Amino acid sequence: MIDLADVRAARDRVAATSRHTPLDYTHTFSAMTGAEVHLKLETFQRTGAFKIRGATNRIATLPEADRAAGVVTASAGNHAQGVALAATRAGVDAHIVMPEDAPISKVKATRAYGAEVELFGVDYSEAADRAHRIEREEGRYYLHAFDDPMVMAGQGTIGLEILDDLPSVDTVIVPIGGGGLISGIATAIKGEHPDTRVIGVQAAGASSVVPSLEAGERVELDAVETIADGIATRTVGESTFEVIRERVDEVVTVSDDEIAVALALLLERAKTLVEGAGAVPLAALLEGTVDYDEGETIVPVLSGGNIDLNTLTTVIVRGLAATGRYLRIRTVLHDRPGALEEFVAIVADAGANIYAIQHDRTSRDVAMKDAEIEVDLETRGQDHVEELVGALEDAGYVIDVLV
Amino acid sequence: MIDLADVRAARDRVAATSRHTPLDYTHTFSAMTGAEVHLKLETFQRTGAFKIRGATNRIATLPEADRAAGVVTASAGNHAQGVALAATRAGVDAHIVMPEDAPISKVKATRAYGAEVELFGVDYSEAADRAHRIEREEGRYYLHAFDDPMVMAGQGTIGLEILDDLPSVDTVIVPIGGGGLISGIATAIKGEHPDTRVIGVQAAGASSVVPSLEAGERVELDAVETIADGIATRTVGESTFEVIRERVDEVVTVSDDEIAVALALLLERAKTLVEGAGAVPLAALLEGTVDYDEGETIVPVLSGGNIDLNTLTTVIVRGLAATGRYLRIRTVLHDRPGALEEFVAIVADAGANIYAIQHDRTSRDVAMKDAEIEVDLETRGQDHVEELVGALEDAGYVIDVLV
Repeated sequence: MIDLADVRAARDRVAATSRHTPLDYTHTFSAMTGAEVHLKLETFQRTGAFKIRGATNRIATLPEADRAAGVVTASAGNHAQGVALAATRAGVDAHIVMPEDAPISKVKATRAYGAEVELFGVDYSEAADRAHRIEREEGRYYLHAFDDPMVMAGQGTIGLEILDDLPSVDTVIVPIGGGGLISGIATAIKGEHPDTRVIGVQAAGASSVVPSLEAGERVELDAVETIADGIATRTVGESTFEVIRERVDEVVTVSDDEIAVALALLLERAKTLVEGAGAVPLAALLEGTVDYDEGETIVPVLSGGNIDLNTLTTVIVRGLAATGRYLRIRTVLHDRPGALEEFVAIVADAGANIYAIQHDRTSRDVAMKDAEIEVDLETRGQDHVEELVGALEDAGYVIDVLV
Repeated sequence: MIDLADVRAARDRVAATSRHTPLDYTHTFSAMTGAEVHLKLETFQRTGAFKIRGATNRIATLPEADRAAGVVTASAGNHAQGVALAATRAGVDAHIVMPEDAPISKVKATRAYGAEVELFGVDYSEAADRAHRIEREEGRYYLHAFDDPMVMAGQGTIGLEILDDLPSVDTVIVPIGGGGLISGIATAIKGEHPDTRVIGVQAAGASSVVPSLEAGERVELDAVETIADGIATRTVGESTFEVIRERVDEVVTVSDDEIAVALALLLERAKTLVEGAGAVPLAALLEGTVDYDEGETIVPVLSGGNIDLNTLTTVIVRGLAATGRYLRIRTVLHDRPGALEEFVAIVADAGANIYAIQHDRTSRDVAMKDAEIEVDLETRGQDHVEELVGALEDAGYVIDVLV
């Protein structure tokens, strides 16, 4: 099992490619939680996520023969970009297999960091099979995304930075996908500061760790489904599971709606973009899924910011809708003069803002001459949504809430 | 006219409410431009924008009688939030009139900072009239958003911070709405460092300064139209115009598409949210609207980040579409087995990713039994869009490009 010395040894190596990312106190989230919240802004890391740390440490510690042969890996996301830049900086050749439907933006970024990118397979599993074939055929070193002591130690440098910048930290909250990030951070934190809590968070749709801890062995899920694609793994690694069992205080889960709300709040209040996985620790804190004392010093690790901008727009709408700040309804207007004006007046009286109205007279579900409308609205919260829908229903409208 | 001493005197006062915001070197935008680009991240300012600086300096220098009477102002945006927090911190009562259709998120934020908010009028102009009536009736001090020497001096503290953090700066690029921000910054920069260029940028749909400079007097536009609502003003102030004439080297304009592209890039590459006005200086740099030498040290001032999240989703799509990375097309599928599969196969062969397909058999524009589809796609750039549309047209589809 890796120990503190491995993480300490990783630190100088990792500095060759990676920045010591900011740890920023946040008025907003401190006020919302009653804790002293400092955000570890790994979203501002080179390549947009923490993966470059582990990849850099792994490549730096490879035997010369492996470095000469080059590395290969499979990834649809942050690991691809991290390996690409780490390898290029080390003068090591990198071949990266990405699934055919990987976002074009991520494929382009990985190529721009200097790797050879091959698009192969319908999903990560097929891409990984292809990468392992290249490992065998070309004798390249397969650089695993998490289940590797040197990768874990590299990610752990985040823990050292947190302790440097905020020695009084009480609790660190970390997302768990394959477990590489939390293994490294927990090793650093517990090694230097045994009383500081390390709490892991998984997306509810990809939560293998809680049942694994209960079973005393790794459980593999049949399927995963979450908007936090960076942590959508069916199981953690063998070596990461050992570290989690030993050094992580607690593991909790959050729902996709909770993740979307936290992501939207980080944008709106902290002006900071994170990906779904990066929002998970703050989601657990805001939802009270993590217990804490008033005034406790808490660090959510915002692990990365690589979210496809089209996905982002969907997640924002979901986050706003989940908190009653965005509402899409459908209703039918009867064909008489002033029907739309009357509807709009009720909405205005209720204090909601209209973003958009789609008006459709051709829908087959309504009587001839009536019109179906879909309305997108800005609202003030769940109570306001209920008040608005109630006012419209009182006026005789049949309201279908779509989002 | 204000001078350097006014800005220096503002500095300690402003520190009571505002942070010295980061000035971050950016690999990405340096590589894209060939310049050394450092971003002044005023988007991370308290209240999300620079306005709190000027409001704080103004309130701190008011006579005691005015402080006791309280302040009043009108604003739909950043000035409202800046005045609210500055007044609350100074123990001064603030009454702020916001137009009735102001985004709910901004109304809530302004109230949360401790101001009394009144919703009045269909636009800024009606809200301002109401605020002036309150000024007369209640004897409150009207706190102007830009045309006030103490407000200008407060905003100028940004210039001092830039010089502190990067004394070698060659060029500072600043958005212009009413002119308060650039007046203050130009006064600080030219006072300390006459050789550093200060360049102003307006949105093309709200660009009164270029014609004003040509005419030698302020020109007022009849109407303004831009996605950068923070700088959608019909003219600059009297006193700000004098400073701009004297101390600003050049004023240029950028289009809404250019603003949207810069905003989307800042999110995607710097993980940082700015509002439209905050994206304007980077837009001017990326588009080559500003001349510069290879390796020149340039600071775009990202003035604020308060953009309504629903507006944001629209702007992101516009930015992606403007660079050929998002495409929405409409076409007709004839009613025979496999029609959709054939269409999808051509798209896949061209290497585009499908985000969404809307399928509509009820449209009145197509023959019975045919179906109209609308398809949202991820593409790799303008060339790729042309290639994809060409391939579909070669296969016999009539393609309507919507976005």
